[in-house]
Amino acid sequence: MSPNSKGVEILSIGTELLLGNIINTNAQWISEQLSQLGLNHFRQSTVGDNCDRIIKVIQEISKRSNLLITTGGLGPTPDDLTTEAIAKSFNVTLFERTHLWFEIKQKLPNSKLKDDSSSLRKQCFFPKNAQIINNPRGTAPGMIWEPIKGFTILTFPGVPSEMKTMWEETAYDFIKTKFSDSYSFFSNTLKFAGIGESSVAEKINDLLNLKNPTVAPYANLGEVKLRITARAKNNQEAKNIIKPIREKLKKEFSQFIFGEDNDTLPSVLIKELIRRNQTIVFAESCTGGLLSSSLTSVSGSSKVFQGSIVSYSNQLKSLLLNISEEKLIKYGAVSKEVCEAMAINVKEKLGADWAIAISGIAGPKGGSRDKPVGLVYISISGPNNHITNIKKLFNSTRNRIEIQTLSVNVCLNSLRLILLSNSK
Amino acid sequence: MSPNSKGVEILSIGTELLLGNIINTNAQWISEQLSQLGLNHFRQSTVGDNCDRIIKVIQEISKRSNLLITTGGLGPTPDDLTTEAIAKSFNVTLFERTHLWFEIKQKLPNSKLKDDSSSLRKQCFFPKNAQIINNPRGTAPGMIWEPIKGFTILTFPGVPSEMKTMWEETAYDFIKTKFSDSYSFFSNTLKFAGIGESSVAEKINDLLNLKNPTVAPYANLGEVKLRITARAKNNQEAKNIIKPIREKLKKEFSQFIFGEDNDTLPSVLIKELIRRNQTIVFAESCTGGLLSSSLTSVSGSSKVFQGSIVSYSNQLKSLLLNISEEKLIKYGAVSKEVCEAMAINVKEKLGADWAIAISGIAGPKGGSRDKPVGLVYISISGPNNHITNIKKLFNSTRNRIEIQTLSVNVCLNSLRLILLSNSK
Repeated sequence: MSPNSKGVEILSIGTELLLGNIINTNAQWISEQLSQLGLNHFRQSTVGDNCDRIIKVIQEISKRSNLLITTGGLGPTPDDLTTEAIAKSFNVTLFERTHLWFEIKQKLPNSKLKDDSSSLRKQCFFPKNAQIINNPRGTAPGMIWEPIKGFTILTFPGVPSEMKTMWEETAYDFIKTKFSDSYSFFSNTLKFAGIGESSVAEKINDLLNLKNPTVAPYANLGEVKLRITARAKNNQEAKNIIKPIREKLKKEFSQFIFGEDNDTLPSVLIKELIRRNQTIVFAESCTGGLLSSSLTSVSGSSKVFQGSIVSYSNQLKSLLLNISEEKLIKYGAVSKEVCEAMAINVKEKLGADWAIAISGIAGPKGGSRDKPVGLVYISISGPNNHITNIKKLFNSTRNRIEIQTLSVNVCLNSLRLILLSNSK
Repeated sequence: MSPNSKGVEILSIGTELLLGNIINTNAQWISEQLSQLGLNHFRQSTVGDNCDRIIKVIQEISKRSNLLITTGGLGPTPDDLTTEAIAKSFNVTLFERTHLWFEIKQKLPNSKLKDDSSSLRKQCFFPKNAQIINNPRGTAPGMIWEPIKGFTILTFPGVPSEMKTMWEETAYDFIKTKFSDSYSFFSNTLKFAGIGESSVAEKINDLLNLKNPTVAPYANLGEVKLRITARAKNNQEAKNIIKPIREKLKKEFSQFIFGEDNDTLPSVLIKELIRRNQTIVFAESCTGGLLSSSLTSVSGSSKVFQGSIVSYSNQLKSLLLNISEEKLIKYGAVSKEVCEAMAINVKEKLGADWAIAISGIAGPKGGSRDKPVGLVYISISGPNNHITNIKKLFNSTRNRIEIQTLSVNVCLNSLRLILLSNSK
């Protein structure tokens, strides 16, 4: 029987988590690490700085799991109770490790710690047979302790940088050797644009019940992902397990899939424009610079992105993009006509191969019956007088930032599809 | 005995949480809400999309708590098991609410849902006496259900925007009426710019140990907050408890405090420019549109923001901002001289009261010994030939997006300070 047969749990300790003062990024980071180690991690708990409650949850966990990772509560203040509560859970006394006190004093040479009164001294007390996890980035060490046969606890401070360093320097190898079988998890994520989560899920219903690899859908604003995860002995074996599913999905969804893993719509578009040696510019109204900044958030964007004109006021649409006042009056700034002219003119004026213009009503104010909040026009102008006009009406429940973000996604994905169909 | 005497728990459901694919921001947000309601919230759990494990944890919670909030697992896919598992926990059958199916079809008018095969239909099944929590931002409703006397469950989808809207529109009032005692928590957050978290914390060490109100510092990229929280019977009493501390802090930190609660640097700046009836434009290079989009993410920005020129390439710096080629060659695009000219020229060309220009090296490539990654020039040009030049060198450990974000913060905060000292 593998020592990992019962599974691993994470226990986050800290009243600040229950008050909602901080986000529990530690649990996410440790979860990711456990996945990579192929460990069977099935539950997480959070409790406050309360000795009785910590004892209760630790005793529960000791009955159903093999390995417990705790974060938080190792510091010097009176509400740091983790080590004490763990010891009490198993009726064990704490003893001071004198060398740890010397180490703390060495770490804080300027703070003139008093041997008999420093609150930091508390951090030197551990159960007799616990192994210390050195903390190179702070003063509070952690421990590896097996209070009862078949159940091991590892403790870490709540400060993410300290926890991560201690994990990498000490805990990772210990866990890998003692708890990980020879299998690990490897993932490959396919990313979708222009299709909703439920449409993706419906088409692959059969795949969602697979065991190895598993296929799981996730959705974010305007983006759907499918994560294919294989359990395998090594990367190559994992790739072989993932491959047939990945190919089936790529065939099924073809151009709805814009990329994989770390790809983003901007990064994919930049790569394609670099390949074509083409440049791009934007004329933004309702997105107010978000389209430009989504592209320039990617390193290397300067190879294709020349710049853009954020013509937020009508005055600047005339001044910088030569949109005639008649056109603005006749059709309004939010219209196919004005948007198309913005795209054509910015491309010509700035001298690029491609231009995207966008004009709409991001709200919450500024909407009318004819032109409600969520109405967005997009025009894409390209080589050989190519022009594509898109009209979108986003759901009225969308807020300003969602409308701006979704509009940017439509711009980027539409150009991606145009480039695909104009393969060069 | 108050119905809240046993306490509240949060259960987050989703294998993606256990795999570490996403950070559990929902638990933090709900925790914050429960704090504000003054509820006794003492434990959080996370489990995967596994029916047996969900049932086990729900049965445990039902024995020790009065109120359970769940997130996740309400969607259309086979791994969305929450409602089913909750019903099974109490041996109850699910029934379809036919009106919900009509609502879903109305929400998705273009998707031609099939009555007999759509996976979305699953979202219409609930226990007989459950009250539905309407989901205005998505298709999956939640429920309020009391399966056994003294234990109530509220379910929410995992998508944060849907969960939050449902909480605010339906759950908040329900919980406040049924579970909150006469005391609640009220908070007032002071927001800082231009000062680090440790500098703030050091100056107010004595305040960090207060009991009512409590004072807690938080830090985000380029922003520090102090949250003052009072426990009181009503808003007025809370304000009275908070007031002396708030005034002490405002005096101590004066202009380092840029706003409170929902204020952001852009919103504060927009408010001040509206008050002065002044307009603003930008010329952006290394931030590539992020400064513009930070302003236009705020509703009402069109009253002061006219637009901007994102001159990413040197060519566009010449073409659109009349920066001479000699200047670009002599000083380089990332220089005080070019940046100052960008600010002066964009202000004149676009005809605004204020202009901010920014040019720097956001990295990770493009740095040199003389001009390393993280070097950023900012120029602010205003009425009466006002010009302020700022040179920043951000820490080399900062990544591209951090450098862009911090640069935008410096731009906004610097103009805020200039406006403060030029009070009008």
